[in-house]
Amino acid sequence: MTPKLSRYATRLPSSPVREILSVSQQPGMISFAGGLPDASVMPTLPVSDSYANVMQYGTSDGEGILKQNLVKWLASEGFECSAEYVMITSGSQQGLDLVSRLLVDEGSEVIVEDPTYLAMLQLLKGLGAKLLPINLGENGVDLESLEQQLKNSQARMIYLIPTFQNPTGYCYTEAERIAVAELIDRYQVTLVEDDPYRVLNFDGVFTRPICHYLKTATWVYLGSFSKMLWPGLRTGFMVAHPALFPWLMRSKQAADLHSNRLGQAIIAEYLQQGLLADHVAKLQAHYKEKRDYMQTLLKTHLPATVRWRLPSGGMFFWLELDQDTRQVLVKGIESGVVVLPGTAFAVEKSADHTLRLSFSQMKPADMEEGIKRLAKVLAQLQA
Amino acid sequence: MTPKLSRYATRLPSSPVREILSVSQQPGMISFAGGLPDASVMPTLPVSDSYANVMQYGTSDGEGILKQNLVKWLASEGFECSAEYVMITSGSQQGLDLVSRLLVDEGSEVIVEDPTYLAMLQLLKGLGAKLLPINLGENGVDLESLEQQLKNSQARMIYLIPTFQNPTGYCYTEAERIAVAELIDRYQVTLVEDDPYRVLNFDGVFTRPICHYLKTATWVYLGSFSKMLWPGLRTGFMVAHPALFPWLMRSKQAADLHSNRLGQAIIAEYLQQGLLADHVAKLQAHYKEKRDYMQTLLKTHLPATVRWRLPSGGMFFWLELDQDTRQVLVKGIESGVVVLPGTAFAVEKSADHTLRLSFSQMKPADMEEGIKRLAKVLAQLQA
Repeated sequence: MTPKLSRYATRLPSSPVREILSVSQQPGMISFAGGLPDASVMPTLPVSDSYANVMQYGTSDGEGILKQNLVKWLASEGFECSAEYVMITSGSQQGLDLVSRLLVDEGSEVIVEDPTYLAMLQLLKGLGAKLLPINLGENGVDLESLEQQLKNSQARMIYLIPTFQNPTGYCYTEAERIAVAELIDRYQVTLVEDDPYRVLNFDGVFTRPICHYLKTATWVYLGSFSKMLWPGLRTGFMVAHPALFPWLMRSKQAADLHSNRLGQAIIAEYLQQGLLADHVAKLQAHYKEKRDYMQTLLKTHLPATVRWRLPSGGMFFWLELDQDTRQVLVKGIESGVVVLPGTAFAVEKSADHTLRLSFSQMKPADMEEGIKRLAKVLAQLQA
Repeated sequence: MTPKLSRYATRLPSSPVREILSVSQQPGMISFAGGLPDASVMPTLPVSDSYANVMQYGTSDGEGILKQNLVKWLASEGFECSAEYVMITSGSQQGLDLVSRLLVDEGSEVIVEDPTYLAMLQLLKGLGAKLLPINLGENGVDLESLEQQLKNSQARMIYLIPTFQNPTGYCYTEAERIAVAELIDRYQVTLVEDDPYRVLNFDGVFTRPICHYLKTATWVYLGSFSKMLWPGLRTGFMVAHPALFPWLMRSKQAADLHSNRLGQAIIAEYLQQGLLADHVAKLQAHYKEKRDYMQTLLKTHLPATVRWRLPSGGMFFWLELDQDTRQVLVKGIESGVVVLPGTAFAVEKSADHTLRLSFSQMKPADMEEGIKRLAKVLAQLQA
């Protein structure tokens, strides 16, 4: 029998990133495709006698000790909030799912950056959202197009990644953050601010969350421990406006009751021991070196017509080319290099001439070999 | 501002069980309300050098080593399946959410036992399902009403808990399992079989999954490690018919990318070390003693008019009374005893004269004191 599926199921696209993960793991393959943190700089797990105490069922919002430590850390990052409105999630992806289901019906309008995070596109398409793109180009976020979208729509939700955006690496300036917050307050739409890359700040740029500046609009702020500590623990978090928090609790209960407690206890222990600040400094130096080396390689090996903005943080270079890039994935794999064409992240604006390259995980020699292979593939496609 | 919410959000009921958890934790309160396993019989976590290897992002379907061990265990339980179609979930609650979203649209008909599992009712109501109840009474599952519902509806999904059902404790006989499977095959509806209590089999009754007997219908089988090992790790699993598995993968990616790997590695290690069989035997003896003691207390302290069937497994007694029980929760809390009225689990059939009592977690002295308090509350309400 063929099962009768829901409209959600039939609309839900599969993820190209996760599907090519297996290709990336073939011997000799060099992959710039994923957004994996470098396992060599993950700390060893802190030891504690308390872990045996978290084996029973727990509370839907998460471990109090983790929430308290998290609130302290967020305050040190310029974002004051109350532990009462913090929820621990199974990675920040789950937070995106929970909040989207609370706000989006079939046909609901949602404002998004164009291009934007792949798995959020996947989710919003599954839910049947009507996506209203705002341009994220070389001059930053297009405030005029944002205001037009807000004025001309009934959007319930705006989804932004203001800090080291995925895929473009763009980081909103202070002035942009304030201007965006003012527009959101004026038009009363719920802001969903996704902030997984915050700690990977190489050049000390301004990163205060847009949620901090909102006066009347409702909002959800999402963060992750995956990029700073251990993604395998699947522990992320949300902070929500008080009007939204009780709904998130119900949605979390129905989704998985609560997040795994051992992961929460381990991260709480790490924060409690005061180890995070030094570790973040180490991460910043480590990834900055990778970014700088990638930039050198791109300048050395790619044609002078390829353009990019040096990302001040995060994990990605976003390249704009004079040639069509849609065949780079298939042709690249034949040559032992995996690169994601920008089309994977496109909402409406063409991304046919763009590529996203991750620099987060690779050894220098592999990175060099990979960029050389990419240069050859581009030359072949050009010919 | 008041956020504009989705229809899912506005339909989603809150969970009375989770809301009274805080009441249950007040000093002196004796609670029969939850379904918590007894922490005193949870094993210590197995030690392994391999845990550092699961700190990176993982695969959406879960750890191979856990899936292989799981398939071996399921085969020993009379259910042959392939690791290829096993997915590890963030507790079996997540499996229910993933599969329901794949099958249920607003207005979709779903066949369920009446009464049934509270959090699944919550979820299906949130999704806007039209629930078609089949009676689960003193004589077991009502096959005639099942066939009527199948014949007269366009149901896409049937949700059953055939083994130590929550809340009634009922366990389908072999003949009932075969008859139900034949009907499901005949009417081609997807079976969602929820089986969290399987190992808590006190009297050696027949428990082979109904999914085993299906010939042509599609199905999803859900299981949990929460009742046999550590609920705090939030590690459950699904086995799916090949036609459904790829859709579950997409849905899992959009929901949380993958489940926490440390929990998976710990459980895999426990299974790999061959420790499960002895532990299950210990659990069965432990909970059987509690069940038998509860039965003695019920016979001793409650009026002779209260009726129940001795549950051959699971965690609950389901009591039928000659009096209205809807005030028992509120009045009980005033007297220091928390008991769930059956109405919380009702679909359509009245459950105004029923109560669910958990016997899984309590010390004998507390259990006795709690049943005495309950007897008093019932007498007061009667008067």
